[in-house]
Amino acid sequence: VKTADEPSGANTDWLTLNIGGRCFTTTRTTLVNKEPDSMLAHMFQDRELWGNKQDPRGAYLIDRSPEYFEPILNYLRHGQLIVNEGINLLGVLEEARFFGIEQLAEQLEVAIKNSQPPEDHSPIS
Amino acid sequence: VKTADEPSGANTDWLTLNIGGRCFTTTRTTLVNKEPDSMLAHMFQDRELWGNKQDPRGAYLIDRSPEYFEPILNYLRHGQLIVNEGINLLGVLEEARFFGIEQLAEQLEVAIKNSQPPEDHSPIS
Amino acid sequence: VKTADEPSGANTDWLTLNIGGRCFTTTRTTLVNKEPDSMLAHMFQDRELWGNKQDPRGAYLIDRSPEYFEPILNYLRHGQLIVNEGINLLGVLEEARFFGIEQLAEQLEVAIKNSQPPEDHSPIS
Amino acid sequence: VKTADEPSGANTDWLTLNIGGRCFTTTRTTLVNKEPDSMLAHMFQDRELWGNKQDPRGAYLIDRSPEYFEPILNYLRHGQLIVNEGINLLGVLEEARFFGIEQLAEQLEVAIKNSQPPEDHSPIS
Amino acid sequence: VKTADEPSGANTDWLTLNIGGRCFTTTRTTLVNKEPDSMLAHMFQDRELWGNKQDPRGAYLIDRSPEYFEPILNYLRHGQLIVNEGINLLGVLEEARFFGIEQLAEQLEVAIKNSQPPEDHSPIS
Repeated sequence: VKTADEPSGANTDWLTLNIGGRCFTTTRTTLVNKEPDSMLAHMFQDRELWGNKQDPRGAYLIDRSPEYFEPILNYLRHGQLIVNEGINLLGVLEEARFFGIEQLAEQLEVAIKNSQPPEDHSPIS
Repeated sequence: VKTADEPSGANTDWLTLNIGGRCFTTTRTTLVNKEPDSMLAHMFQDRELWGNKQDPRGAYLIDRSPEYFEPILNYLRHGQLIVNEGINLLGVLEEARFFGIEQLAEQLEVAIKNSQPPEDHSPIS
Repeated sequence: VKTADEPSGANTDWLTLNIGGRCFTTTRTTLVNKEPDSMLAHMFQDRELWGNKQDPRGAYLIDRSPEYFEPILNYLRHGQLIVNEGINLLGVLEEARFFGIEQLAEQLEVAIKNSQPPEDHSPIS
Repeated sequence: VKTADEPSGANTDWLTLNIGGRCFTTTRTTLVNKEPDSMLAHMFQDRELWGNKQDPRGAYLIDRSPEYFEPILNYLRHGQLIVNEGINLLGVLEEARFFGIEQLAEQLEVAIKNSQPPEDHSPIS
Repeated sequence: VKTADEPSGANTDWLTLNIGGRCFTTTRTTLVNKEPDSMLAHMFQDRELWGNKQDPRGAYLIDRSPEYFEPILNYLRHGQLIVNEGINLLGVLEEARFFGIEQLAEQLEVAIKNSQPPEDHSPIS
């Protein structure tokens, strides 16, 4: 599937995602290697198959939340789920599920359970 | 209502909203399908009717708060109301009402009531 | 005062403010109608008089804080003062005063008083 | 030192600072008048002397933190030190010292002392 | 290793890093001098050797988290580790390790230990 614009291996195959209007720059390797069975990996492994749309600057369009995608991309980069205080884990969970990153979704479900034990939080925050 | 620039169905009909100066990229499907009776759905369903203005880059201009629109767009994407800690729900409620997303406005009213029970918060935060 | 580039009424007269480097897109109606006696209203009502400077993209330059201007613009849009947790109300007050939005400044003064009752906060946060 | 592109006095002499990658738009008056003895004032008063570098869009390059510069620029605009909750005052102090704004640095030192009295905070936050 | 586009010494050798989609402008001196043995220093000292990729605007592409890189760049600027409240130190630690800034990684490990003593925090926040 190697094309002319990827001469030096997947590692140097840079791409930009336009997630809901914010741009994230990463490599195909990051999107594909860490969770090869995820929907996200398939979207960028079988490019021709998926026919992802691109914006005028060439960024791949994805109609999802940029804010909650950020920890997901970091997870794909280094394997750790790291979220700042105040960020709603339910938002990250929605994205993990959408992109089919199962292992991360499970980690998030555990974290959500642990973060709201006796005092029942509302479903919002 | 299908026009030349929408060859492959509503799902691939991407558009950008310029909400108060920040750009959000999404699909017409997201804006129209989840809450078909909302003002927002009508604005983007009956395009010719509404005559929405566009900025020089083609983004549709809406004179509202980008910050509080964010959870509304996410709600239209996946059906969940998810808001970070510290974000004022009254701000999200104003946008839900403006865009005529009634079901979400009701959810927000309940959430606001639940978040300030005995200790009477000021109307600000 | 209607000019060639405003064919369809004040309501459709879009403009962009470059506040300290961040751009806010809004309508002249929003800036002028809610608080017609404010300095901000005068700045954009009597355009020729004030001679507001524009940046290369045509946005009107204002040398103030973008962060604290945000709730002020929202107030002009819908009439509510809504501020997120952690945002320093003193910063919003400085902008309300600068732009001569008296009613909002008074609301903010009350809110500031209410937010720091017995335990004397430092003048900073 | 008045040049052709500054016809209407220092007040209308707009410039953009590229602080670590984020752009701040302000006037030379703001940078120079409030604290005329600061390094920042000298940098922009004696332009020819300092030979400040500019990025391709003409913004003056400064290799510092944009986040912690923000309250400093606001201070130069209106004379008040105003910082949001959660912003590390030590970061603002580093910038105040770098730009040689002595009076502000002293205010910050007092505020830092007051914010961490008996319970000894770590040097980080 | 001095080339034609660096006439006035390392100090004036400005460059932009595109970290995961956000751009940081800094000098080669900042990246190289403070921690000369780090991977980051080597990346920008031995430019020809590393063959860093650049985006269309000339910014050097690095597939990492912009948010957690920010305190690292500030550390290289002034030697202090300064992080806002709510920012997850584990995120900063991942970046410090990736860029091989050993002394900072050690400081972060101590700070993380100190910030979660008896009440065992989850590995997430």
